[in-house]
Amino acid sequence: MAVSLNADLGESFGPWKMGDDAALLPLINAASLACGYHAGDPEIMAETVRLALAAGCSIGAHPGFPDLQGFGRRALKMSAREVEAITAYQVGALAGTAALHGGKVTHVKPHGMLNTIASAEEDLARAIARAARAVDRDMILVVLPGTELEKAGRAEGLACALEGYADRLYEPDGRLASRALPDAVHHDIAVIREQALRMVLEGEVIARGGVRLKLAVQTLCLHGDEPSAVEAARQVRAGLLEGGAQLLTLPRMMAA
Amino acid sequence: MAVSLNADLGESFGPWKMGDDAALLPLINAASLACGYHAGDPEIMAETVRLALAAGCSIGAHPGFPDLQGFGRRALKMSAREVEAITAYQVGALAGTAALHGGKVTHVKPHGMLNTIASAEEDLARAIARAARAVDRDMILVVLPGTELEKAGRAEGLACALEGYADRLYEPDGRLASRALPDAVHHDIAVIREQALRMVLEGEVIARGGVRLKLAVQTLCLHGDEPSAVEAARQVRAGLLEGGAQLLTLPRMMAA
Amino acid sequence: MAVSLNADLGESFGPWKMGDDAALLPLINAASLACGYHAGDPEIMAETVRLALAAGCSIGAHPGFPDLQGFGRRALKMSAREVEAITAYQVGALAGTAALHGGKVTHVKPHGMLNTIASAEEDLARAIARAARAVDRDMILVVLPGTELEKAGRAEGLACALEGYADRLYEPDGRLASRALPDAVHHDIAVIREQALRMVLEGEVIARGGVRLKLAVQTLCLHGDEPSAVEAARQVRAGLLEGGAQLLTLPRMMAA
Amino acid sequence: MAVSLNADLGESFGPWKMGDDAALLPLINAASLACGYHAGDPEIMAETVRLALAAGCSIGAHPGFPDLQGFGRRALKMSAREVEAITAYQVGALAGTAALHGGKVTHVKPHGMLNTIASAEEDLARAIARAARAVDRDMILVVLPGTELEKAGRAEGLACALEGYADRLYEPDGRLASRALPDAVHHDIAVIREQALRMVLEGEVIARGGVRLKLAVQTLCLHGDEPSAVEAARQVRAGLLEGGAQLLTLPRMMAA
Repeated sequence: MAVSLNADLGESFGPWKMGDDAALLPLINAASLACGYHAGDPEIMAETVRLALAAGCSIGAHPGFPDLQGFGRRALKMSAREVEAITAYQVGALAGTAALHGGKVTHVKPHGMLNTIASAEEDLARAIARAARAVDRDMILVVLPGTELEKAGRAEGLACALEGYADRLYEPDGRLASRALPDAVHHDIAVIREQALRMVLEGEVIARGGVRLKLAVQTLCLHGDEPSAVEAARQVRAGLLEGGAQLLTLPRMMAA
Repeated sequence: MAVSLNADLGESFGPWKMGDDAALLPLINAASLACGYHAGDPEIMAETVRLALAAGCSIGAHPGFPDLQGFGRRALKMSAREVEAITAYQVGALAGTAALHGGKVTHVKPHGMLNTIASAEEDLARAIARAARAVDRDMILVVLPGTELEKAGRAEGLACALEGYADRLYEPDGRLASRALPDAVHHDIAVIREQALRMVLEGEVIARGGVRLKLAVQTLCLHGDEPSAVEAARQVRAGLLEGGAQLLTLPRMMAA
Repeated sequence: MAVSLNADLGESFGPWKMGDDAALLPLINAASLACGYHAGDPEIMAETVRLALAAGCSIGAHPGFPDLQGFGRRALKMSAREVEAITAYQVGALAGTAALHGGKVTHVKPHGMLNTIASAEEDLARAIARAARAVDRDMILVVLPGTELEKAGRAEGLACALEGYADRLYEPDGRLASRALPDAVHHDIAVIREQALRMVLEGEVIARGGVRLKLAVQTLCLHGDEPSAVEAARQVRAGLLEGGAQLLTLPRMMAA
Repeated sequence: MAVSLNADLGESFGPWKMGDDAALLPLINAASLACGYHAGDPEIMAETVRLALAAGCSIGAHPGFPDLQGFGRRALKMSAREVEAITAYQVGALAGTAALHGGKVTHVKPHGMLNTIASAEEDLARAIARAARAVDRDMILVVLPGTELEKAGRAEGLACALEGYADRLYEPDGRLASRALPDAVHHDIAVIREQALRMVLEGEVIARGGVRLKLAVQTLCLHGDEPSAVEAARQVRAGLLEGGAQLLTLPRMMAA
């Protein structure tokens, strides 16, 4: 009964702010930082590393498509070679920046549309896994269970942290329900809390139509884009601690 | 009587080509690669790393201002904190990319206007040295002798490779003559060859007005932007070998 | 007794929001829109044009340095030819975007550091004025009184709208006090309101040390970056209307 | 028996050169200029406008996806609203830049993958046509015959210049053969010359398998990326003049 709470941080850019990193950092164990391609810039990355280390979080890279305006959410057709190169570039860039504060990048979690595509396309998934492994063979790859990215990570010999979402509806086959559907995202904090606890403490989730689904997760993704999201994160954390779960950084979780 | 011949490589971008990397690589011992800010992109960086390793060269980062259109030659007013962050970012990005081919970044040499400014301004010089050292405390900093960048590198405890130019006129005080002056750049291959040999084999240079100047250099910068530059590089290399000089990668040079 | 109230709008970028355009638009008469170089993107520009036209405002271009991360506030060394080209590019880009909603660009006001430099350097000021005039010889140039930019605008035969700031301290010579000084910016709404009314209704301002200064302005710049700034803008507008001032778009102001 | 010879120009960027604009300009009647998104920058645009005007060519915008590294050749998923905005932005930016030399943008021809997608998808085709028309209702849209872009241009009431390729194989249905096929591009100058003359002088083309195809074109696209391409362009021009064809700028062609 252990889990690593992760969140996407450092998604501001230049003068523009996004998210409430300060509110989320005390609640999480692993921070995934934007690397300058879809968000983030070198100064924001350095400062977010500093804050994450101070909060005792492990640090991961959140590489995305080179599309600031589209925030990495627009599909950009890239070859496996291109994806391998931009992943290695971004993970390395964060590693260099983290070094300014004595930090180390211990996980990689692709962002937005890059994650969506890498979850479905084998060659791009392999490209990401190869790049992550090239930078550090102990790198942890954060993956949605059952995706091409998980397969690629395992094929490359990487530790794969299976990720769950407390605020997303699951389909009975274990995939996340499409965001296009009206009930794809839970907004009720009690529902979010309940799903988180069930996932971590009982290894299952109630999918669409009430279907009970076995789903072992090593890391839960929390959000901080709205005040209610931060409050949901607080309650998830509190509930997990009350339920006896251990909250660990990603390297400690994977070593547990 | 040893020296490391270096050149700036990987300065193409996307579909646009620059320089003749293939012609220069067999002539040099250390390659300084653009890191995507003033030139280069992740794929070009990865491919240039591959070629440099195949040619037996050591690899260095050539970080610049974030100004592709201006090729890093336009002054951009940045704070020391900003320069520290962009240097760590770029050096790290190259390190990540180099890892794709099992390579390692062993030196840092600032590019263009960033080098010019860091040679003169203490706080920016220190920022670059700090970033280089944070990424790797064995990092070699390539510096013009006597500059603030050399002082900063030594203050941070970095190995500093003193760099000389075979095709540039020196002032009697050891600085390079301003490019604005008509005779600042040597075009005659015999002159370039003679200056290179004198620097490496005798530790001196004939500065403006015929002044003999003691100048110990550990690395010479060669250019490949024109056919005559490549021919000059060939003759410098041949002359040095004939004169009995050892040509070493930068890490071997600094260890020698 | 007439004035045009202007504000800088459309300074969001991609997913990142900045400023409260919706709050400011009903208060102003002329909107200066970021053109994608220091802020803004084509969609944001198009939407801001639509809102500005709906609010009855005239539209102007707010061209800046090509530096999103630095928000156009970092000095970038550019030649007059470069500045001329980026100004024509940005003004034209906004004109094209404005055309989507039947709008027209009627003024140009350089942004941030570009404005600071163009206020002081004759050749860059001339470059901006030439570009503005090339796009439209009826273009209005918004200038700080007494600057090189005003001189350049007049030399190019452009209508120059003299701009005043209700929330900035003036030096006795008519320049704005440096922002580096502690009292350079007024924060007290009553003080801001009083300075605005004095400028517009009496053509003078109380400069540092209580010096009364004649200062005719045709346009006042309002801000919307904080709730108190919006409230100050509201009070300035209300005070001016009570005082009998006419509030006009920039073309109508200059034709008055 | 008239035609407008067009070519894509101004595809350099910053310090990087592409194409031989100087060789092509005397051979063509209409220049399509990159607008800074896939290639080109404000200075290059201004200089290319100057050269094109000096050569007596009409000027068109060649808007592309915002992807310098990929040269606008990688598909980027954009909504119709986004495509409308980036088209208006780029066409306007070129119009502003052209104004520096007293020039005017008289046609729009989408670049690369944007053209490919707009040829096939109605909503994006309409977005481009709407943006072109918004900037100038006399704007000429350069289209491949029979595409969604042609339909969209006509639906928006724009003059559509039907474009042919002298160096591309046609399918019997009038579409260009896929570049993936080995014989999709003609390299033999005699073949290119013959296809150009047949198109312009006889209004037909010999498609794959020897099928004679009626194909009226108003403009032929010439290339300058290789010396042989420039020579082919020379021979096409010479052949057309010998054959009695009139070579016209695009506005004169469409008015003819």
